[in-house]
Amino acid sequence: MVNVAILGFGTVGSGVAEVLTGHESSIAQKADGLVKLKYILDVREFPESPFADRFVKDFSVIESDPEVDIVVETIGGATVALDFTRRALAAGKSVVTSNKELVATHGYELTQLAREKGVCYLFEASVGGGIPIIRPLSQCLAANEILEIYGILNGTTNYILTRMIKAGLSFEQALAEAQEKGYAERDPSADVEGHDACRKICILSAIAFGRHIYPEQVPTQGITGVTLADVDYAEGAGKKIKLLGRAIKMPDGAVCAYVAPHLIDVSHPLAGVDDVFNGISVRGDAIGDVMFYGRGAGKLPTASAVVADVMDIARNLGHRKALCWAPGGPDAACGTGQLASRWYVRADARAEALRSALGEVKLLARPGAPAEEAACLTEGEFTQAQLEEKLSGVEVRCALRVLN
Amino acid sequence: MVNVAILGFGTVGSGVAEVLTGHESSIAQKADGLVKLKYILDVREFPESPFADRFVKDFSVIESDPEVDIVVETIGGATVALDFTRRALAAGKSVVTSNKELVATHGYELTQLAREKGVCYLFEASVGGGIPIIRPLSQCLAANEILEIYGILNGTTNYILTRMIKAGLSFEQALAEAQEKGYAERDPSADVEGHDACRKICILSAIAFGRHIYPEQVPTQGITGVTLADVDYAEGAGKKIKLLGRAIKMPDGAVCAYVAPHLIDVSHPLAGVDDVFNGISVRGDAIGDVMFYGRGAGKLPTASAVVADVMDIARNLGHRKALCWAPGGPDAACGTGQLASRWYVRADARAEALRSALGEVKLLARPGAPAEEAACLTEGEFTQAQLEEKLSGVEVRCALRVLN
Repeated sequence: MVNVAILGFGTVGSGVAEVLTGHESSIAQKADGLVKLKYILDVREFPESPFADRFVKDFSVIESDPEVDIVVETIGGATVALDFTRRALAAGKSVVTSNKELVATHGYELTQLAREKGVCYLFEASVGGGIPIIRPLSQCLAANEILEIYGILNGTTNYILTRMIKAGLSFEQALAEAQEKGYAERDPSADVEGHDACRKICILSAIAFGRHIYPEQVPTQGITGVTLADVDYAEGAGKKIKLLGRAIKMPDGAVCAYVAPHLIDVSHPLAGVDDVFNGISVRGDAIGDVMFYGRGAGKLPTASAVVADVMDIARNLGHRKALCWAPGGPDAACGTGQLASRWYVRADARAEALRSALGEVKLLARPGAPAEEAACLTEGEFTQAQLEEKLSGVEVRCALRVLN
Repeated sequence: MVNVAILGFGTVGSGVAEVLTGHESSIAQKADGLVKLKYILDVREFPESPFADRFVKDFSVIESDPEVDIVVETIGGATVALDFTRRALAAGKSVVTSNKELVATHGYELTQLAREKGVCYLFEASVGGGIPIIRPLSQCLAANEILEIYGILNGTTNYILTRMIKAGLSFEQALAEAQEKGYAERDPSADVEGHDACRKICILSAIAFGRHIYPEQVPTQGITGVTLADVDYAEGAGKKIKLLGRAIKMPDGAVCAYVAPHLIDVSHPLAGVDDVFNGISVRGDAIGDVMFYGRGAGKLPTASAVVADVMDIARNLGHRKALCWAPGGPDAACGTGQLASRWYVRADARAEALRSALGEVKLLARPGAPAEEAACLTEGEFTQAQLEEKLSGVEVRCALRVLN
């Protein structure tokens, strides 16, 4: 029998309790033994909960109970969660989490600690909710050299962009709708400013390329600057605007990781990833491109990924090798300085001004465009610095990379 | 150090040798030790091969060498491959294969034998080539009750259908082109009659639903009956024709598994899976729908999946729990008798005849349709028997299920 403690009884934590107990017999069968929920840690009271008898308020009860094999951390953030995770691992317990902030900022330290203690620190649910991506990337694609990963990593911003594209809502209207539906927080900045996607691309980079990349090393641009004018121009060019997290192994070995809205072709598989869905594309030297698609968030999808990690540990107790990677450093990530792309540019300018600044371009049109506005796709590929230099005399309103 | 023997030096076997030796140092790092290619078994001579010194012609050399830990079977078929796999497992060696025929027909026996011997029988490459699907399904989605799996499982037929849809080629022309490009065999029947997809849905069913399903229990229809007329009618209805392997857990616990061309909506994620790509959709009770997409065949994609299995075994030598399922039986699969669907019907008939036979229908049009031809989508859902009864007086030319 394997005993589990859940830290934090919020959306994901309560989902984990539900999945663990609701599927008890099939989990026992697949995990070769009973997986029992022994404790739930929360500062709040839940007298009506079917799990009321399992609540504790003091982490040391869990920490000092030798019967607890696995701790599920769904507290979030990187303060209390970090302290409890360190203490659980130090006490020889495996830890499973959905906490992307903690993995992105302290994943190197925590995986090392797990390795030293001969236990596991698993976090399948931290990227893509229930979509299997961490294990496929680390195990199934292990025979590949990974060249690039990119994807729609944040469901909230994808919902907002989808509503702008399909229903013609403004960013503000679409955000308000997402908040009404519970897809966006009251303070939506972690999503709309791209920070959530940034943490996820950090985690994917570590698994794919073998070194820790910290969020502050990843240039991050959200979707607050995307307007309906840009959506319309993109549509006229057979493209859609999607917020991508992207990490590319550069020829010198450093990783170019960043988050930004991109124009992608409507025929690209990611163009069909709408609403709150996520899609993650991985390019390996042997496999070519593979894509993973599904619900990137939500109580039960995320909980099911957490429980799958719990089952994996239960099934291989004492044997499973830890996932780990090398430490980060200033040379691990190189920013986007060397990355040349085709660009979409919208400016308060005449078409001729864009053409003379950028060379060969494809001019774009949209219904109701003011006379002083022009937009284009560049034919040539430029770094951001090159683009800015070329456009130095032009009143640029929006410039986005085009995904090849 | 872990020693590997490859059985069969064809496309996949030579790809495995290439990936194993080409990525030797990164594989050693990820697998926590050197993975060495010790033998290649083939009846042919390869004097020019860089691996010439490792060829053997007698399987008993491999079988009786205690240094060989892992046998990679890429012979194909279910005769010699079955014999060698049994003997390798019995000798306490783990076996990795890409052989879908062998897994679909003898997977239960071979996984049981592996379990008894405390070794592994792994076959990630048998479905979807390099696309991670077996491990995500068995591990990452383990906390879900799987409700349904369906997908484009055969690249050859998907290429043919894509060329019919996009270039207006006839089935025969598209097949000839696929043969020229090496995507189809000279005898294409295993692909175009649906047998290859059938084997793959058997394997996916076993993993997802826990009992062996044999190919002969799976009603299988290929794409030889699909004409350009059907492609055109589908397009007029906003649909595409795709060959799907499908397995549904029915309320009584039996599995409804079958292979047939379906009409799917152009907005469905699988509709964008074109050419030789595969796409596999899985529906779980917690996760909802997830989809996996990539190259379903080819030397290096398939080889990379085989090598990932080899690395997984090497990394967890002696510890990895075997994948296994319960035996099959007549009650494990129930055919499609109870499965009601909307249908696409093309007939040599007047529109009124279809309407009076089928009730509410959506009539379809195509350019150049003869006056005596009519086609429709039914509004109601019918089993195949119900449909046939309703259409008993009608000259039906094609009837295909519509995926909801």
